[in-house]
Amino acid sequence: MKFNIIKSDGNARTGLIETDRGKIHTPAFIPVGTVGTVKAVTPDELKEMGAEMILCNTYHLYLRPGHEIISSLGGIHKFMNWDRTILTDSGGFQVFSLSALRKIEENGVHFKSHLDGSMHFIGPKEAMEIQSLLGSDIAMVLDDCAPYPSSYEYTVESLERTTMWADQCKEYHKKMQDNPPMSPLTKGGIKGESCIVYRASPQCLFGIIQGGMYNDLRKRSAEELVKIGFDGYAVGGLSVGEPKEEMHEMIYFTAPLLPYYKPRYLMGIGDLKDVLIGVEAGFDMFDCVMPTRNARNGTLFTSRGRISIKREEFKSDRGPLDPDCECYTCRNYSRGYLRHIFLSKEILSMRLNTIHNLYFYFNFFRNMRRFIREGKFKEFKIRWEEIVR
Amino acid sequence: MKFNIIKSDGNARTGLIETDRGKIHTPAFIPVGTVGTVKAVTPDELKEMGAEMILCNTYHLYLRPGHEIISSLGGIHKFMNWDRTILTDSGGFQVFSLSALRKIEENGVHFKSHLDGSMHFIGPKEAMEIQSLLGSDIAMVLDDCAPYPSSYEYTVESLERTTMWADQCKEYHKKMQDNPPMSPLTKGGIKGESCIVYRASPQCLFGIIQGGMYNDLRKRSAEELVKIGFDGYAVGGLSVGEPKEEMHEMIYFTAPLLPYYKPRYLMGIGDLKDVLIGVEAGFDMFDCVMPTRNARNGTLFTSRGRISIKREEFKSDRGPLDPDCECYTCRNYSRGYLRHIFLSKEILSMRLNTIHNLYFYFNFFRNMRRFIREGKFKEFKIRWEEIVR
Repeated sequence: MKFNIIKSDGNARTGLIETDRGKIHTPAFIPVGTVGTVKAVTPDELKEMGAEMILCNTYHLYLRPGHEIISSLGGIHKFMNWDRTILTDSGGFQVFSLSALRKIEENGVHFKSHLDGSMHFIGPKEAMEIQSLLGSDIAMVLDDCAPYPSSYEYTVESLERTTMWADQCKEYHKKMQDNPPMSPLTKGGIKGESCIVYRASPQCLFGIIQGGMYNDLRKRSAEELVKIGFDGYAVGGLSVGEPKEEMHEMIYFTAPLLPYYKPRYLMGIGDLKDVLIGVEAGFDMFDCVMPTRNARNGTLFTSRGRISIKREEFKSDRGPLDPDCECYTCRNYSRGYLRHIFLSKEILSMRLNTIHNLYFYFNFFRNMRRFIREGKFKEFKIRWEEIVR
Repeated sequence: MKFNIIKSDGNARTGLIETDRGKIHTPAFIPVGTVGTVKAVTPDELKEMGAEMILCNTYHLYLRPGHEIISSLGGIHKFMNWDRTILTDSGGFQVFSLSALRKIEENGVHFKSHLDGSMHFIGPKEAMEIQSLLGSDIAMVLDDCAPYPSSYEYTVESLERTTMWADQCKEYHKKMQDNPPMSPLTKGGIKGESCIVYRASPQCLFGIIQGGMYNDLRKRSAEELVKIGFDGYAVGGLSVGEPKEEMHEMIYFTAPLLPYYKPRYLMGIGDLKDVLIGVEAGFDMFDCVMPTRNARNGTLFTSRGRISIKREEFKSDRGPLDPDCECYTCRNYSRGYLRHIFLSKEILSMRLNTIHNLYFYFNFFRNMRRFIREGKFKEFKIRWEEIVR
């Protein structure tokens, strides 16, 4: 993986990540394809909108259909028909946020599936093995995400675990890169078909900084992670319930702790107001379900702010969602129609809304990169702060 | 509207319907776009699959968003972004099958909305007015569909009402073609926008034969409808619960009662076994929710028969749904993936399944037309009867 910074403007910077599967212009928005599909859209549509990287959730894919099944079907890219870059999280965050019951131990976490109540265990070794078999381009280390609020003592404990796991992940990851694991299913072949042994292309590994809301612990976490050495660095444990002001302060505080010449990833943050802060601080990558989830709920982003498509006033509205938008939805459908199919709970409503919101996001990021290139990020930020607040 | 029979083979025939909006090759399959969208797919996808005509349900559109709203938004074609032929039913059948309460009177039917319980009335005049404002290319007369089973006496009564309403529909339809109604909303303009007065392109009107399961009444109904004179003729009141054998007998019995040189439409029938019977009898048009509804339930049509995608055996299956299929889904996705996203209740599952099933139907009809052109319909029927039973 290569990363080049093309232009910086204050702490904001625009650059280019290159993986074996293509280029990613940064700051980049990464749509979330939880179980192996960005909800409601096809990979072709994502490409047309400008997506260069997507995120898949290890926790979900591990539970269903299982990483070994995906490996035997040719790996995550072939499985879901997406040939560009895929980042997988480590599963840790979902274990903390979704599973019914969890027990953290020194060497990993026991948890109960939210699907069928079965018990599972993921530690650094498992996290690396699962992501290796999935075959993503960027893997994330297993981290321990402390809840908000957490005491200083607990946060220290959680941070030390995070560092220890990161260290172990690095070690396991290296081993598996040298000698990729084979799916048991693949080994034996399936139903008499010829056995395709799937080997992932080289996989990068990103570290994750924790440390809760304590500046000194964030600093310590960053130093420890940088010492281990990763292809990129993420900040985790934000947007977990803390006040926005605290989050913004922590965004500004953590960015400069991360190596300048490596991609910096602000995990799970995608509210555009927060993105503006994150980019100003010097982050390069952002993932979030906000545009897709909001779309399915009928909340749409426009150049004049958010609108709720179900509102009565749109009943006979012949205009597009956003007169300034060039997306498929805005080129072809009226607000009146979009309101009607939303109220009728039609699948097409979720599709057209998702296309619009994702297009809006990609366009926002595209323009933001241009403003950074032109040294006018501040102007961009001031203009959009008014709209997205 | 023009209709030319290109080739007949026994009673089966292949031909070409031409409306102001394009050509429809017959025998034609007409997907159902109930509330103004063929569930899960876009008009562009429908075109790519080969759809030349779709059906919209007057009952649903009348209740929500309302025909006047659709008219003010530019008519049904512009509303839903489909520029090819649209057929609307009269609303009669849905009033009988969906509304909670109904009371049939000489001049129409009172019914209760299945959406909000509000009371409504549709008679011949209303049916023609609504379809005129929707601006469909082919309108259907309001008919009285007798339930199964019905006594001879009740069926006579229902048949006489059907003929009387057909007569009145013809009259109102002619009036409205000469002097199209204007939407009250359109008249006044909306929210200060310039007032676009929408006028539909010429609309055809089809008659509907009733008469239950009684041959003499079917004959009488056909004679009375033909005497009034329509652009095409449909057979209604089949597939309402009667045994398949009875339905098939009635299909063979009614087809020759309809004018040879006009399109013959077998309403609501689309099980491929029944389609083979219908085409053999001499019908030209078929509409049905079967391919789309089955798709959403995970039942898929293939050249080797139906499969249920949720079955365990497909878990690690790398093959396409149907090795003989060239559809988008079969070109890009494995059964293993399709099973996974179906079990995960993903929107993409409904999309990909719908694309496959509709493509399968259009392909089936395309091949059937070719076999008729080549005088080999019998061969086609024998081959497929084995598969679709």
